[in-house]
Amino acid sequence: MRPQPGSGLVGGQEEAAQEAGLTSGTGPSPTFPFLSIGMDSCVIPLRHGGLSLVQTTDFFYPLVEDPYMMGRIACANVLSDLYAMGITECDNMLMLLSVSQSMNEEEREKVTPLMVKGFRDAAEEGGTAVTGGQTVVNPWIIIGGVATVVCQPNEFIMPDNAVVGDVLVLTKPLGTQVAANAHQWLDNPERWNKIKMVVSREEVELAYQEAMFNMATLNRTAAGLMHTFNAHAATDITGFGILGHSQNLAKQQRNEVSFVIHNLPIIAKMAAISKASGRFGLLQGTSAETSGGLLICLPREQAARFCSEIKSSKYGEGHQAWIVGIVEKGNRTARIIDKPRVIEVLPRGATAAALAPDNSNASSEPSS
Amino acid sequence: MRPQPGSGLVGGQEEAAQEAGLTSGTGPSPTFPFLSIGMDSCVIPLRHGGLSLVQTTDFFYPLVEDPYMMGRIACANVLSDLYAMGITECDNMLMLLSVSQSMNEEEREKVTPLMVKGFRDAAEEGGTAVTGGQTVVNPWIIIGGVATVVCQPNEFIMPDNAVVGDVLVLTKPLGTQVAANAHQWLDNPERWNKIKMVVSREEVELAYQEAMFNMATLNRTAAGLMHTFNAHAATDITGFGILGHSQNLAKQQRNEVSFVIHNLPIIAKMAAISKASGRFGLLQGTSAETSGGLLICLPREQAARFCSEIKSSKYGEGHQAWIVGIVEKGNRTARIIDKPRVIEVLPRGATAAALAPDNSNASSEPSS
Repeated sequence: MRPQPGSGLVGGQEEAAQEAGLTSGTGPSPTFPFLSIGMDSCVIPLRHGGLSLVQTTDFFYPLVEDPYMMGRIACANVLSDLYAMGITECDNMLMLLSVSQSMNEEEREKVTPLMVKGFRDAAEEGGTAVTGGQTVVNPWIIIGGVATVVCQPNEFIMPDNAVVGDVLVLTKPLGTQVAANAHQWLDNPERWNKIKMVVSREEVELAYQEAMFNMATLNRTAAGLMHTFNAHAATDITGFGILGHSQNLAKQQRNEVSFVIHNLPIIAKMAAISKASGRFGLLQGTSAETSGGLLICLPREQAARFCSEIKSSKYGEGHQAWIVGIVEKGNRTARIIDKPRVIEVLPRGATAAALAPDNSNASSEPSS
Repeated sequence: MRPQPGSGLVGGQEEAAQEAGLTSGTGPSPTFPFLSIGMDSCVIPLRHGGLSLVQTTDFFYPLVEDPYMMGRIACANVLSDLYAMGITECDNMLMLLSVSQSMNEEEREKVTPLMVKGFRDAAEEGGTAVTGGQTVVNPWIIIGGVATVVCQPNEFIMPDNAVVGDVLVLTKPLGTQVAANAHQWLDNPERWNKIKMVVSREEVELAYQEAMFNMATLNRTAAGLMHTFNAHAATDITGFGILGHSQNLAKQQRNEVSFVIHNLPIIAKMAAISKASGRFGLLQGTSAETSGGLLICLPREQAARFCSEIKSSKYGEGHQAWIVGIVEKGNRTARIIDKPRVIEVLPRGATAAALAPDNSNASSEPSS
């Protein structure tokens, strides 16, 4: 199961550079995993008695204004690649950081320690610690890291064993980048005018808080429950959106299966913003997420129990999961049905009354 | 011997940010290891039978024009932190890359695969492979990586056991960044005018080639010989110069020792450029190096044998080492003597006649 080095990486990077080219005009861009590697983490057999080295790296640019939360999000995002393999422990983290050239010394001294603290606190919550890293100066702030663990074979679940009849479960709502962008648009009249008919300022604030909370939440609980409920495969939802990552996961399956997504749990109002702005493709499943949930293939009879268990107060507040699709016979592809059901996920800070009545219906289907 | 996470990292990063501030006006800056971690790699005891996880990360900006060589140098620089601990194997590498916003698609497609190939080729030479990584878009090109190995206790040498009477050996000549800068100044009349009295264009070209070759050379042979000749401690020379890294290494010693450096092997003519330009502090030991040599504490009777052995053709071409100082009783500091002997190291491409006659003398002593 060792990913093949070969020419794959070069291909992946060329793809990344090309995609990067398409988005470089819009400022800080989403990150691009090496698609060709195929898995969220690399798994290297070691010379020592059946152990494997599993590791992953991610770094990106801030997308929320709160530096502490940005540090937490960056750490949660790095660890998520381990969690997607059902790994709950991490032996070591390194931090990757750049301080921005365009900040003055006072700003740097305020922002940098907060980002570092957020990253460290999230690492501690993950039962691990940051022991090193690298810092450079750069025009833009960069934050990211490396997560590494040495595992026994029973500690990780290879993401290639989905079977016909499995059910797909998603552990965080979609719409994080829509929320982050909409929040920036509160101060951009031209952009705001395009969406103000479908959303209030208060709703955007609530959605932004909800997105930030979700992005900063570790997928560790979900990773643990993958073992409890006999998960067959999983990935985490990040830069390629739920459809892109579903397709990646489908490609890696040993059995002749395909994934069909019926339901899209989305932070309330973000589907409407995606449609009104015409920019994200949230209902098409192509909107990038940051530190999104795990998408897990579970035996059908276990999925409902998984969704119920993860909400238990013993795992702390704020975990949710939804059944979003099924595994059927097929040629290792993934798709979203024509009129997916949008599940509008209310922000924790919201009362139902504060939001418009059309919370869950087919009118949210793709209009383009 | 596990490095303490604690507040050290935050301190290290504040220092980095401050230093960064000092240099941010001069464009791409040297990189800043987390000083407070103290060692070149972090060493994490694992849950599995006596094994340790050793890993390191580095990333920085290109300093040579050849993208293939830049890839090799970046990889050699990352691996060097393992080699400094006497580790000769690496279980896995990840690559960190940013493609530059300011390059057009054609430039990117030319440059990126060459950098990746250089990095991969050097990894292969190190007996390892790149299995993953991360790519983003950034105003500047970034290249770096993560090197990880899981070791038995006898595979690494903790850098804390120098004893009085030991000798310090250096395995690459100093002056890499002086050479890289002088080469850029060939096209900058204002800068060139300040150094043209002490160096010819041809000498700069030769020194640049020599620096590039040295930076791209793995410290792996030296790491292996650390075991053969019973090394007591080592570090690699990078952003803080030979003096800075000697001081770091001295601080970590268990015995009450200090390091005194008498000799400075320097790529020919780079000492003169450092003095004439007034910018580098090469003779003071503070000039940054990239992918520099190992500085190794060896028992006196072994040092000469080490220097002789590393030149053996069985290790391939181009390895050299010099005795540069001694370990004496002291309070864990390092210094360079008042008038160090400068050893002018001739570039491979040069004939002795092509260079001025003052190859090795005290006239190269610090004048400021």
